[in-house]
Amino acid sequence: MSIVVTNPPRVARETAEAFAPYGVATVHEAQGRTGLMGSRMRPIYSGARIAGSAVTVSIPPADNWMLHVAVEQCRPGDVLVVACTTDNTDGMFGELLATSVQARGVVGLVIDAGCRDVKALAEMRFPVWSRAISAKGTVKATLGSVNVPVVCAGAQIMPGDAVVADDDGVVVVPRAQAAEVAALSEKRVANEEEKRARLAAGELGLDMYRMREALEAAGLTYVDELPG
Amino acid sequence: MSIVVTNPPRVARETAEAFAPYGVATVHEAQGRTGLMGSRMRPIYSGARIAGSAVTVSIPPADNWMLHVAVEQCRPGDVLVVACTTDNTDGMFGELLATSVQARGVVGLVIDAGCRDVKALAEMRFPVWSRAISAKGTVKATLGSVNVPVVCAGAQIMPGDAVVADDDGVVVVPRAQAAEVAALSEKRVANEEEKRARLAAGELGLDMYRMREALEAAGLTYVDELPG
Amino acid sequence: MSIVVTNPPRVARETAEAFAPYGVATVHEAQGRTGLMGSRMRPIYSGARIAGSAVTVSIPPADNWMLHVAVEQCRPGDVLVVACTTDNTDGMFGELLATSVQARGVVGLVIDAGCRDVKALAEMRFPVWSRAISAKGTVKATLGSVNVPVVCAGAQIMPGDAVVADDDGVVVVPRAQAAEVAALSEKRVANEEEKRARLAAGELGLDMYRMREALEAAGLTYVDELPG
Amino acid sequence: MSIVVTNPPRVARETAEAFAPYGVATVHEAQGRTGLMGSRMRPIYSGARIAGSAVTVSIPPADNWMLHVAVEQCRPGDVLVVACTTDNTDGMFGELLATSVQARGVVGLVIDAGCRDVKALAEMRFPVWSRAISAKGTVKATLGSVNVPVVCAGAQIMPGDAVVADDDGVVVVPRAQAAEVAALSEKRVANEEEKRARLAAGELGLDMYRMREALEAAGLTYVDELPG
Amino acid sequence: MSIVVTNPPRVARETAEAFAPYGVATVHEAQGRTGLMGSRMRPIYSGARIAGSAVTVSIPPADNWMLHVAVEQCRPGDVLVVACTTDNTDGMFGELLATSVQARGVVGLVIDAGCRDVKALAEMRFPVWSRAISAKGTVKATLGSVNVPVVCAGAQIMPGDAVVADDDGVVVVPRAQAAEVAALSEKRVANEEEKRARLAAGELGLDMYRMREALEAAGLTYVDELPG
Amino acid sequence: MSIVVTNPPRVARETAEAFAPYGVATVHEAQGRTGLMGSRMRPIYSGARIAGSAVTVSIPPADNWMLHVAVEQCRPGDVLVVACTTDNTDGMFGELLATSVQARGVVGLVIDAGCRDVKALAEMRFPVWSRAISAKGTVKATLGSVNVPVVCAGAQIMPGDAVVADDDGVVVVPRAQAAEVAALSEKRVANEEEKRARLAAGELGLDMYRMREALEAAGLTYVDELPG
Repeated sequence: MSIVVTNPPRVARETAEAFAPYGVATVHEAQGRTGLMGSRMRPIYSGARIAGSAVTVSIPPADNWMLHVAVEQCRPGDVLVVACTTDNTDGMFGELLATSVQARGVVGLVIDAGCRDVKALAEMRFPVWSRAISAKGTVKATLGSVNVPVVCAGAQIMPGDAVVADDDGVVVVPRAQAAEVAALSEKRVANEEEKRARLAAGELGLDMYRMREALEAAGLTYVDELPG
Repeated sequence: MSIVVTNPPRVARETAEAFAPYGVATVHEAQGRTGLMGSRMRPIYSGARIAGSAVTVSIPPADNWMLHVAVEQCRPGDVLVVACTTDNTDGMFGELLATSVQARGVVGLVIDAGCRDVKALAEMRFPVWSRAISAKGTVKATLGSVNVPVVCAGAQIMPGDAVVADDDGVVVVPRAQAAEVAALSEKRVANEEEKRARLAAGELGLDMYRMREALEAAGLTYVDELPG
Repeated sequence: MSIVVTNPPRVARETAEAFAPYGVATVHEAQGRTGLMGSRMRPIYSGARIAGSAVTVSIPPADNWMLHVAVEQCRPGDVLVVACTTDNTDGMFGELLATSVQARGVVGLVIDAGCRDVKALAEMRFPVWSRAISAKGTVKATLGSVNVPVVCAGAQIMPGDAVVADDDGVVVVPRAQAAEVAALSEKRVANEEEKRARLAAGELGLDMYRMREALEAAGLTYVDELPG
Repeated sequence: MSIVVTNPPRVARETAEAFAPYGVATVHEAQGRTGLMGSRMRPIYSGARIAGSAVTVSIPPADNWMLHVAVEQCRPGDVLVVACTTDNTDGMFGELLATSVQARGVVGLVIDAGCRDVKALAEMRFPVWSRAISAKGTVKATLGSVNVPVVCAGAQIMPGDAVVADDDGVVVVPRAQAAEVAALSEKRVANEEEKRARLAAGELGLDMYRMREALEAAGLTYVDELPG
Repeated sequence: MSIVVTNPPRVARETAEAFAPYGVATVHEAQGRTGLMGSRMRPIYSGARIAGSAVTVSIPPADNWMLHVAVEQCRPGDVLVVACTTDNTDGMFGELLATSVQARGVVGLVIDAGCRDVKALAEMRFPVWSRAISAKGTVKATLGSVNVPVVCAGAQIMPGDAVVADDDGVVVVPRAQAAEVAALSEKRVANEEEKRARLAAGELGLDMYRMREALEAAGLTYVDELPG
Repeated sequence: MSIVVTNPPRVARETAEAFAPYGVATVHEAQGRTGLMGSRMRPIYSGARIAGSAVTVSIPPADNWMLHVAVEQCRPGDVLVVACTTDNTDGMFGELLATSVQARGVVGLVIDAGCRDVKALAEMRFPVWSRAISAKGTVKATLGSVNVPVVCAGAQIMPGDAVVADDDGVVVVPRAQAAEVAALSEKRVANEEEKRARLAAGELGLDMYRMREALEAAGLTYVDELPG
């Protein structure tokens, strides 16, 4: 059955935007090392960071009909998240769709398939994380669904979940935990600030994290030379 | 049998250059979604776009002897297209060969193998599309052929076919159809121009492409909330 | 057994630094096309080139405990070389570790696993060659070893060997041969200088390398047109 | 947080066993082409078919500690389903664990990682679907969870869902829909029985499925010879 | 444009059947090491060997509509050869289609995509070479073409070309050269017969092929021990 | 430099044969989880197990000249171990070479490249572990070396090291440690015998290995139901 859910819950916009200062690595750690998409998801240009509420799409391979349907469901601050029902690298999304979603305030695209017109997208500053760059065109013949739960690049995601993406990859934060995870991310960054200063000053992690005893207990041995 | 065809037909230079304003995605669509090389073919630096007449090379793995033979067959406006008889990522092409082909007016290289000296090539602005970047050196021991039909990254190509490449990939246009495809590309771009403006103004693709009826006929259902 | 060798031999710093002007392709050729890591090892940003003495680490997947141990063993001019006991792409190394090793004078990291915080690392100008970029966090539960012989991305490396890395990849030069290979690299570059000038002036490699006779002997045939 | 859910709901044993006559392809079609794991999941020997209730495990790479924890949670008719928090091919499961779970009535293992002792497992007739065969040993250092929702080889699965596996792959049927999907599978097989007989007798699918009109409407053209 | 060519030339049946005694490796060598499909094409069960005339199909991913169209074009002794317009592993072909083509005398399938119902196909002794085994179902929504030139797994193939497949892979022999290649295959096998006997008797290939001189000329050095 | 070492040390034949009763997983564990080749190395038929002394070969891609050289260096009980200087899947080894090495008493082949004639090899019961099966033929144009240290599928191996291979993969045991590792393997198997009996009788690994306390200390929590 192919459905479009028109009024899913959404993570509050200010909650999603609270992730803006934090990288994907930080957010992923803050929520207990969960929610990360696979490392095949790479940005089409470097330096972008986005955070928003997911509009999810389940789409057949080589067919971008449902992307046009999904556009109508997008609101300012949303991130379009596209999962494909099978492995596919075709260029399902390009300049025209980007123009359309950017006009609706979408902050970026995450697609477990291919993307094209990447030079134009970079010039528009519309960030995309995809598994491939491919000029391969698609048809408009088969339905899918919008705003249903999907698995995208190995991560389970519900419509309205928070999505954070940067040069390190893409992470999903369940809507109900978004505020808490943002707070934990802040704490984590504050904590790292101090550590960075100490490490930059030459203090060793071995000492700062008090690892020496545990390493010795685990059996680590220091020798002067490689044994014969 | 290893042969070098010294006088193959070539797509007319002005025909090849007519592709200059059009991206690979456009050209590929204009000729009915054919001729695209696989998405493993990536540019060594971003932003380049080339169009020219193919000098084809069939080459054994880890051996670049035939590239030296191929150089002599190149003329201004040509694109060197190298297919390997087996999967191989060795660095068959580097700065010296680039210097040599650039001196002959070659506008770029497409190689279904590896490339090296990529920093120098970027500084020379000699664009390369390859499946890998690798410093691995090669030998000069086994023959291949120049200007014979080859399959490169999954695309069939004849010597003298037009080749267009940009950040989205590489597409082959059969020589006999090049003028027509260039004309269709122009039409396509003109057509997209207007669509882009309408989409940027907020019009939905659903309406612009009149998709709503077909979607409904195919059974697409809109619901307010995710069912149970 | 997990050991840390605290006083391995090191390639002399001036010997390692002698590689600075030469690219990986040159060095790899100069030592007889050996020592190259696999082409999956890619720089996180382009344009960097490093040469230094290897501090080697053997590490279990998804666990970066031993990286903290390794930091203490690093001295100015070292390159940290991390081999993983199984295929793994997790983000074992990020901004804090980079801060720490940079404070100790380490010139770069080579890791056959994942790296994260790549935007921050690029801003710090701390170069990394890795098989993946991933935000995936790791644990600190299982020991490995430091300064033992390892196989990294298919290349055998001993602690104290010279490591050279640039946009083309990573090459290992055994410590005992480093001075000789640096000298051979210099000779090779000098030799190429002259060739480049001749090729740029339009001379053919076929003539410059005197290949025509050998090609003919091997059976290469020139024909005017593709045979029917 | 690492938890073990000791009393999850389970699909009724007779419901799971109702899938026994149906292949994975049939079940996957019967539930609307959903729930299939990725095709990297291959049986270690051919010819086995299983159906049972999932005991799910989320496990770190290269660490099989939680498999020992999971064994205790297994009951007769269960299928152990192991998802790894990152890509990993290590041999997390072998003869001793198989002996243990077989003693508890487990009918098979589905693991998105590696398996070893495959000759012994085949002799025991304990079927395993895995992404790899590898002798690589693992540690017991890091916790995971048992009977929590996981994503395994791209498919979302809850503890107690039905799992069906055969030479074609692995499919997950949500517990609440298992009875209905089994009934639909039966209907589908009955329907295919008749089709098979007609096709074996030489009737064309084009006629049996009445496709000719739709093909013509879509623009399919029959020509006697390939156009020049 | 989607076309079906209904009356392509075909390699003579007796010519195709002349390949029956020869393996793929032999045929591939006999025609100068050309025509081999990529090694990703694997048989679904071992031990089968087929030779026949190709009915070619170009098909979009995840859509097997055109396979039903192709069945009608098949005659006894044909091999169905399916190329996909993009990388795809879905299970486009299963038991019902196999029943249908087997009823028409087709001797096997070569498909650069997925296959399902593999247990049933093995029991029917209908051999298939595919890039994947997958239960993933497909739609019938988009046209392709039948009996047009295609590139399948990297090999160019025309309708009516001879196709030979066994446990080593799949090779294409152009129709016009089939009789000659079959004759060369016979010669090759006869020649190998004698070599096998001599090698089995302990004669060295070094002597039988008279390699020693060439090896010495190339610089091969024999030493008693590994140099320090 | 290309050399053939004619008289390398060899692991004693009775020591190598002492590994016969033990699987690769056992041996790999017995020597501290080292020496395993990557899991891409798969047997061409299942059920074989070999143990012998390595004759190592370093070979260029697509060129099997050095295999003919290596044959002469083989003695009864040897295992031929072939590493390729770059990634390659061509069919470097087939029936004729197998006939030749089998005549010299070689017990099997390990090759990090392709193998062909696999049906004939299975009938001859000549076991091969390779990364690919491919009919692709090779040339005899470029030298390599025999009985030098190589890295094969990620494992470092010296001529004369012991090699053990079975359905789980391939492991290398350094010659000097072979007798000790064989003894440790025996101990390990004896130890497992008793464990298997207890597990088969229903005892839990949790109790047998006394894991409960450590799991609790690490923070594992048991709950009756999945928390909301």
